[in-house]
Amino acid sequence: MARALELAERGPAYGPNPRVGCVLLGPASQGRALPDGAAPDSLDPYPRPVLAEGYHQGAGTPHAEAAALADARARGVDVTGATAVVTLEPCAHTGRTGPCADALVAAGVAEVVHAVADPNPVATGGAHRLRAAGVRVVRGLRAAEGEELLRVWLTSVRRGTPYVTLKTATTLDGYVAAEDGTSRWITGPAAREHAHRVRAEVDAIVVGTGTLLTDDPALTARVRAHDAASAERLAEHQPLRVVVGLRGIPPTARVRGEGGELVHLLTRDVGQVLERLAEREVRHVLVEGGPTLATAFLAAGAVDELHAYVAPVLLGSGRRAVDGLGVATIADAHRFRTVEVRRVGDDALVVSRKSTEGRVG
Amino acid sequence: MARALELAERGPAYGPNPRVGCVLLGPASQGRALPDGAAPDSLDPYPRPVLAEGYHQGAGTPHAEAAALADARARGVDVTGATAVVTLEPCAHTGRTGPCADALVAAGVAEVVHAVADPNPVATGGAHRLRAAGVRVVRGLRAAEGEELLRVWLTSVRRGTPYVTLKTATTLDGYVAAEDGTSRWITGPAAREHAHRVRAEVDAIVVGTGTLLTDDPALTARVRAHDAASAERLAEHQPLRVVVGLRGIPPTARVRGEGGELVHLLTRDVGQVLERLAEREVRHVLVEGGPTLATAFLAAGAVDELHAYVAPVLLGSGRRAVDGLGVATIADAHRFRTVEVRRVGDDALVVSRKSTEGRVG
Ligand SMILES: NC(=O)c1ccc[n+]([C@@H]2O[C@H](COP(=O)([O-])OP(=O)(O)OC[C@H]3O[C@@H](n4cnc5c(N)ncnc54)[C@H](OP(=O)(O)O)[C@@H]3O)[C@@H](O)[C@H]2O)c1
Ligand SMILES: NC(=O)c1ccc[n+]([C@@H]2O[C@H](COP(=O)([O-])OP(=O)(O)OC[C@H]3O[C@@H](n4cnc5c(N)ncnc54)[C@H](OP(=O)(O)O)[C@@H]3O)[C@@H](O)[C@H]2O)c1
Repeated sequence: MARALELAERGPAYGPNPRVGCVLLGPASQGRALPDGAAPDSLDPYPRPVLAEGYHQGAGTPHAEAAALADARARGVDVTGATAVVTLEPCAHTGRTGPCADALVAAGVAEVVHAVADPNPVATGGAHRLRAAGVRVVRGLRAAEGEELLRVWLTSVRRGTPYVTLKTATTLDGYVAAEDGTSRWITGPAAREHAHRVRAEVDAIVVGTGTLLTDDPALTARVRAHDAASAERLAEHQPLRVVVGLRGIPPTARVRGEGGELVHLLTRDVGQVLERLAEREVRHVLVEGGPTLATAFLAAGAVDELHAYVAPVLLGSGRRAVDGLGVATIADAHRFRTVEVRRVGDDALVVSRKSTEGRVG
Repeated sequence: MARALELAERGPAYGPNPRVGCVLLGPASQGRALPDGAAPDSLDPYPRPVLAEGYHQGAGTPHAEAAALADARARGVDVTGATAVVTLEPCAHTGRTGPCADALVAAGVAEVVHAVADPNPVATGGAHRLRAAGVRVVRGLRAAEGEELLRVWLTSVRRGTPYVTLKTATTLDGYVAAEDGTSRWITGPAAREHAHRVRAEVDAIVVGTGTLLTDDPALTARVRAHDAASAERLAEHQPLRVVVGLRGIPPTARVRGEGGELVHLLTRDVGQVLERLAEREVRHVLVEGGPTLATAFLAAGAVDELHAYVAPVLLGSGRRAVDGLGVATIADAHRFRTVEVRRVGDDALVVSRKSTEGRVG
């Protein structure tokens, strides 16, 4: 399963589909079998020969199980009686590829071990289908690691709305701009580069019309080009560029240039924004501001994760990162759970998640 | 010198005197000598036998050189022709202990190697005195490390006023209390424990009368007791407790209880506060707030180091950590240079220093 998780991680972090890895192991007779049912989360008792492996490379490409079966065929290996170790329960629905459960049965696989059950309402039932065909199914092996790897996707699928990451870039005293509106730069180049790497891993970037009209951002994911030290180029994956608000987008706005598809949502309602993005199979949204939109997302309790870049700068006055949240006393504060504190150049990055997020599902 | 620096670090971080370490090495004939004058900062070419060593343990105890000479006597070693490796230039003045330069000469030491020149106006001249007595003096070996170790003390002595560390404990959006004034707790227990360790390393803690009257703090340095998990006890060293402002200190205030000496400075002038503390040989002041006092220190440009504890909490409104600093545009922001970003429990600690501090001296 460790190998399957490793393979899964090679898949893209963005896109409608989960990152899944699959390893096909030699028949149980060559090793030790687990009983049908729930697996102990701790051990990975499969010191058996690896026959083939595969992972899902994103929408439009084969699922991990199909990729592993194809790998077996390419190698000319017989997988009759084999064990399929998969990070996610094999699907039972016919999408762009056929149901993986059926493909495994057809290939003669005798046992399927998976880490995480499929929460997808249209895909669920894979384990049932496998058992009906006489395949032994073991669930929950390294479930915690599997859940962490699929955290964003699982949250989004279970809830039916995208996982929301809010990014802020502030001074130590909580400002995003000085009194006169100047804000370039508060955080340093390393923090901005890091933020671009995050952009390249999400499905959509969202800003309000205020930021669009003030800053005229391109909202593209850019990476430093390897040939010229100072030049940048567009990252391979470009997220949707989403602008929220009733005002129009100027014809000359940079957001209309090369990059991800531009979506203007003529609303001020956070719930509506999330629904419209869910319809487009957006799993992960990065809200980049400004303060008005950030406050609306926070007030709606719609922020799953917070990426706070904090610069060693004090302003004492200016435009605050977050406007009033209607909190009067400390007990009602919006509390997050710290995941990581990291130095990025001269700035601090604090990654935290909604305090209840661990309880989802 | 590496060993001398190690020894120096064993001395207390607080107190009027610098942390100094001294190692006495066998005569130059047994090894390689450096020419009189400036040493290359990089190498430490003294693979000679260590005869004795010592370090300064704080005001009222022998200087490092005296301690090392005493160690040699105790061991019955002859130090004639020896090399004294000291982190700081030996002093030339008669204080609680006699001039170290004279003591080294009297002991027959042939060579003195030091990292940092003594900036103390009353102590300076040690190298001169040594040379006059025919001792070879090499300066600047591992000077950068020596300067870093003595940073607080050197800054304070060179400038004639205490080194100022400002502590803040805020939400991610820069608040120290909610609208109704509640602030317990924003940061977590680990951050508070860390702050207590810092208190035990400074000479004075300063708060405004506002904080005194609102929070009734004890302003003691406390450590977790080893016997009872939840109990605390007073740390060995208790800093001065300094209250700044015109209002009186209530007779029942906790700050009057067990702990460091209580000093009430009836002023609102930051310069006066620093002068009064300098008169008491205070080298390191920890300003713990509140916002009014913190703002006054920042506005006066009197903050050398910033310890910002940041909790993964958003309030949206409340009492801000810093009031207006008169900054209108981003170019005039108070910028600090990050030294360390660290996770402390669920909070982030950002340690930064005045951008110009590296240029002092
Ligand atoms: N340092 C940073 O991290 C950072 C990041 C982004 C922006 N900024 C700064 O923030 C400033 C812009 O602030 P801003 O608050 O005006 O930007 P904003 O939040 O991007 O846009 C606000 C506008 O969005 C629309 N909107 C969408 N949903 C809304 C809702 N739920 N409630 C109310 N309005 C909603 C409204 O415009 P309509 O009238 O069109 O509906 C509103 O005026 C700029 O100075 C920019 O530089 C800083
Ligand atoms: N989270 C934290 O880190 C933290 C830390 C400390 C305090 N706090 C909170 O801060 C609040 C207290 O705020 P505060 O601003 O009133 O406290 P403060 O800064 O401790 O005290 C302000 C008072 O100090 C005197 N003062 C001294 N120097 C001054 C100067 N240069 N300019 C003006 N006044 C000067 C004035 O009183 P006189 O009239 O007596 O001269 C002034 O009213 C409390 O709610 C407390 O809980 C939070």
